[in-house]
Amino acid sequence: MTSNENAPVTVIGLGLMGQALSRAFLKAGHPTTVWNRTPTKAKPLVAEGAQVAPTINDALKAAPLTIVCLTDYEAVHELLGGSDIDLDGTTLVNLTSGTSAQARQAAQWIEQRGARYLDGAIMAAPPAIGTAEAVILHSGPQRDFEASKPTLDALGMITHLGADHGLASLYDVAGLAMMWSVLNAWLQGTALLQTAGVDATTFAPFAQQIATGVAEWLPGYAEQIADNAFPAEVSALETDARAMAHLIDETKAAGINTELPTLIKKMADRSISAGHGKEQYPVLIEEFTHPSDN
Amino acid sequence: MTSNENAPVTVIGLGLMGQALSRAFLKAGHPTTVWNRTPTKAKPLVAEGAQVAPTINDALKAAPLTIVCLTDYEAVHELLGGSDIDLDGTTLVNLTSGTSAQARQAAQWIEQRGARYLDGAIMAAPPAIGTAEAVILHSGPQRDFEASKPTLDALGMITHLGADHGLASLYDVAGLAMMWSVLNAWLQGTALLQTAGVDATTFAPFAQQIATGVAEWLPGYAEQIADNAFPAEVSALETDARAMAHLIDETKAAGINTELPTLIKKMADRSISAGHGKEQYPVLIEEFTHPSDN
Repeated sequence: MTSNENAPVTVIGLGLMGQALSRAFLKAGHPTTVWNRTPTKAKPLVAEGAQVAPTINDALKAAPLTIVCLTDYEAVHELLGGSDIDLDGTTLVNLTSGTSAQARQAAQWIEQRGARYLDGAIMAAPPAIGTAEAVILHSGPQRDFEASKPTLDALGMITHLGADHGLASLYDVAGLAMMWSVLNAWLQGTALLQTAGVDATTFAPFAQQIATGVAEWLPGYAEQIADNAFPAEVSALETDARAMAHLIDETKAAGINTELPTLIKKMADRSISAGHGKEQYPVLIEEFTHPSDN
Repeated sequence: MTSNENAPVTVIGLGLMGQALSRAFLKAGHPTTVWNRTPTKAKPLVAEGAQVAPTINDALKAAPLTIVCLTDYEAVHELLGGSDIDLDGTTLVNLTSGTSAQARQAAQWIEQRGARYLDGAIMAAPPAIGTAEAVILHSGPQRDFEASKPTLDALGMITHLGADHGLASLYDVAGLAMMWSVLNAWLQGTALLQTAGVDATTFAPFAQQIATGVAEWLPGYAEQIADNAFPAEVSALETDARAMAHLIDETKAAGINTELPTLIKKMADRSISAGHGKEQYPVLIEEFTHPSDN
């Protein structure tokens, strides 16, 4: 991580995450100005070297780059959308959690007010901020990202996804869907193996090994999607479906929750019904791309 | 992989997998006898050095260790359950795919017939057999596993899970549930990002990184289950649930399938309703352990 230590920066919003962001800038040597609706939250940061701006406009004027980290996009609009707020010429990096539509909307009104705008998503908890463990995704104009990167580098592993302001939010929820799915599959397996007397701690390294091994297939499987051709090089979907029936049998026999196995089989069965039984698993992209009823 | 090259071995069942198993034994230098209901399937193996047994009893007598790999457990019982079949004193390693209940049942009738019995599950496709990529799980008496291991080592990475004959099948479906879940989450994310013009091949390395990173948490999260205590060290379940709502919003707005996101949120919401919103994700083990209605 390289960091431009001289560049001043402003942080608006001092929840747990905003405080962690401010601290990472201070540690990297950036003159850091902070602002929060409830000013008491700034006190510990002042002790660590931060300046408190008396008004939002003072905060925005204190640095060419302002990081915004609030509860939601409504709070961002409420705080910065007023006609008395001077955004002209500043660069806002909004790390508030929200959807891609909200990010694109924010980009529109903020750019109309004369500011540059980058959206962002933090894929880390506050204690990881300022370390290489903190992955932070950015989207918006490339030139604005490049101008801000030397300062943003103080926060963690900074990545630019593309010009579409919605991309950071989309990658964020896609990454979270992967996270929850790995955890759910592990919990499903743990619940099943516990019924045979296997401890959660015994099963976990096995589950880790499988998840890591399967993750290695993804770039190759993505080529099948790119080529829209799914030859069964390793296994055919109908073979998978037979094993899925075993999974459902086992979970039923064990008297545990069957919802995840049922959904897994339902989607595969649908693809087999559509004629894809002899093809390989990534052909299911068609099922995931279709709208569903629920 | 060490292998006892002198030990003879028999393989019953010469589907694609049985052929791959026979070939791995031959390559490792084991005198290998094969048997298949349709004898023509043995021909290419004979050219590679295998002996064909004229009857099943001849096959069983040709080696102290017999590997069985058939379509299902019904086929195993049909083939080896007859009173004319002499199982006395032999060791059977059954790699046929099935459930833990079927494995335990097979152990019972096979041991009653005077044979030693190990169950097994192959977590690999036929081309990987004989390489370190082929993970093969075994369950049954430790002493029988140890006696067979020097020969089984020719097949891949051999693991013993415990004395309960059902364990290989349980680990197998638990591992497959992880595999399908990683693939489904990746497909969900791919479908979502495609709507924003991101290629499957661009998203795949990101998805791989997330899956691998989350998999590293599993041993630590398993400690929370072992301790039955779920302090929110990284994130509280109610924070996850807010991001799950974003995932559902994004998939709906993109017009793609919402079933997986809906199930993810449903299970978290249920746990939050049960009072676990301030705890960490593995507290969901309670939901996965409960029987479900479907």
